[in-house]
Amino acid sequence: MRVFNFNGGPAALPVEVLEQVAAEMLDWRGVGMSVMEASHRSKEVAAMTAEAEADLKELLGLDGGWRALFLQGGASLQFAMIPMNFAPDGAPCDYVDTGLWSTKAFQEAKICGADARLAASSAEDKFVFIPSEFDFRPQARYVYLTSNNTVRGTQWSSFPQDAPAPLTADMSSDFLSRPLDLTKFSLVHAGAQKNVGPAGLTIVLIRPEFAATGRSGLPHLLDYRTYIESDSMYNTPPVFAIYVAGLVFKWLKGTMGGLAAVERRNRVKAATLYGAIDGSGGFYRGAARPDSRSLMNVTYRLPSEALEMTFLAEAKKAGFDGLGGHRSVGGVRASLYNAVELKAVEALAAFMAEFARKNG
Amino acid sequence: MRVFNFNGGPAALPVEVLEQVAAEMLDWRGVGMSVMEASHRSKEVAAMTAEAEADLKELLGLDGGWRALFLQGGASLQFAMIPMNFAPDGAPCDYVDTGLWSTKAFQEAKICGADARLAASSAEDKFVFIPSEFDFRPQARYVYLTSNNTVRGTQWSSFPQDAPAPLTADMSSDFLSRPLDLTKFSLVHAGAQKNVGPAGLTIVLIRPEFAATGRSGLPHLLDYRTYIESDSMYNTPPVFAIYVAGLVFKWLKGTMGGLAAVERRNRVKAATLYGAIDGSGGFYRGAARPDSRSLMNVTYRLPSEALEMTFLAEAKKAGFDGLGGHRSVGGVRASLYNAVELKAVEALAAFMAEFARKNG
Repeated sequence: MRVFNFNGGPAALPVEVLEQVAAEMLDWRGVGMSVMEASHRSKEVAAMTAEAEADLKELLGLDGGWRALFLQGGASLQFAMIPMNFAPDGAPCDYVDTGLWSTKAFQEAKICGADARLAASSAEDKFVFIPSEFDFRPQARYVYLTSNNTVRGTQWSSFPQDAPAPLTADMSSDFLSRPLDLTKFSLVHAGAQKNVGPAGLTIVLIRPEFAATGRSGLPHLLDYRTYIESDSMYNTPPVFAIYVAGLVFKWLKGTMGGLAAVERRNRVKAATLYGAIDGSGGFYRGAARPDSRSLMNVTYRLPSEALEMTFLAEAKKAGFDGLGGHRSVGGVRASLYNAVELKAVEALAAFMAEFARKNG
Repeated sequence: MRVFNFNGGPAALPVEVLEQVAAEMLDWRGVGMSVMEASHRSKEVAAMTAEAEADLKELLGLDGGWRALFLQGGASLQFAMIPMNFAPDGAPCDYVDTGLWSTKAFQEAKICGADARLAASSAEDKFVFIPSEFDFRPQARYVYLTSNNTVRGTQWSSFPQDAPAPLTADMSSDFLSRPLDLTKFSLVHAGAQKNVGPAGLTIVLIRPEFAATGRSGLPHLLDYRTYIESDSMYNTPPVFAIYVAGLVFKWLKGTMGGLAAVERRNRVKAATLYGAIDGSGGFYRGAARPDSRSLMNVTYRLPSEALEMTFLAEAKKAGFDGLGGHRSVGGVRASLYNAVELKAVEALAAFMAEFARKNG
């Protein structure tokens, strides 16, 4: 029996995609083998990869000035690749620190020898908000931010329009959850394991003209140009993960009706859950500042840690999984990625109301 | 209908593993979700990963002086990570060049600034043999070799016993195809997509005491210690690929009866195919020198390239897939990884005899 899956990532995937994956496991596209057994140089896998890139660009409305690439290593490898490519030899780069993942990105830039500085930070208030004022340096090679913060449950609703350098962003946890205006951006990365597919695939959107400004002489796998020039096929890519991601892109285009419709659904889901929190008479308290609340990760607390433990245990028994807060902060977190259905959120809201009634 | 899959990699996987993957796609281990949807921090995924490492070490007979790690990025990232960790600041390291993949590893070491030198090479004769004499430098930090060469179809039958430095090796294409004596080794890497599982997973066997000699101050994902200290969970690992690899390890231990039995089967398969080549009266010619022939990748030529094209086309029609030689050399290549069954090889041998009779 399937549970209601509120995992922070890896996270829920669309059932119709999983059913197709299972059905094609022994014979994919009639080639007489699993997609995992097919050569990445075969015309079928090359076509599938090209189709995935095209579908992704169509979903996001990206033009020929962008490439969508399929990498490995997760956001953590991007934390190093971005400064290695774009801020070598102590070049300046500006970071906005909105929590655990941007802190890590910032630290990794310093490890790589970049002159990385904070243009803004919400550390002063435990990262419960998104800053709105920035101290950008004109000479910065790029600005780095994290569009959605899974730990505290905050999200940028709009991005800085006046940054003097190209924006780069980790969008792992809200990628494809809404339409994106990437005018000010030059690079976006996203681990697949939230809204896209299995862990082990990292999607990078990049402007080739930005990639061309990167340091030369890097190891091949750490240079974005390698992926651009080889259509993500310099070496064997994570074929199965690209395959699942491609099915998710088609599900987003077809069943879900595109990213504008996806955003509308996500707003209804988030409003349902924040409504349950705000309407609980103070039993549940949202962890993020209201103006910075995430549509993807709804974080909240109960009157005591003991009650939180009881809540999580009873929720699990009732078929709600993955509700524990990030191990660094505790509390409750419900992640509402694209594949989480409204009925799951409504069921959780009802469960919360009943729990508050019994324990309030 | 399943074809006979002779792909060079990604390659054939055991049908019983694929069937289990399909059966568990919507509900893995009774947790109410796919393994792709489960948190990598859940006790089930942590247990699965620990079990995969333990099974792998048991298969190889590795003791506590070794760790088996799960990385991403393929051999191509290892080509850079090894010199970055173990030959920083122009330190010396010796390479044995037996073809395309070791050439790339050697070049990447130079890109990383290592003082990389060739201790031996079979380039003089188009890489059709494995060298037996080596010019090792006493001061080398490590020696690097490629245990099996997929392009020309050569394989080391034994490894240098007198190297003055720890051996490191790319064993991507014959990993788990036979028992291994790793006494002289300190690091082995293997992309999963030959004998282990889906592309997107790189297995690294490493002695922690060797890892401890590595350069400090590297980006986290490029430092082997990060994976050792975090049990391969510093960031989200490729969970699905580890899951499939774990099932393959259990298949090797159970159904296949361990690596000694696996090697016996692989020797019968290879003997069957080399027999078909050598017994063809010169119609088929083995591409590798007989003393260096690979048990994994059987490479051969026909009397003309035109006949090779006809052979490949007719073979494909007859249900034999993946027989084209590597794009850099052409000819025919049958890859006989663990999951390729003897009956497939016998069928190919019979097809070859019939083709030679009609076209000889």
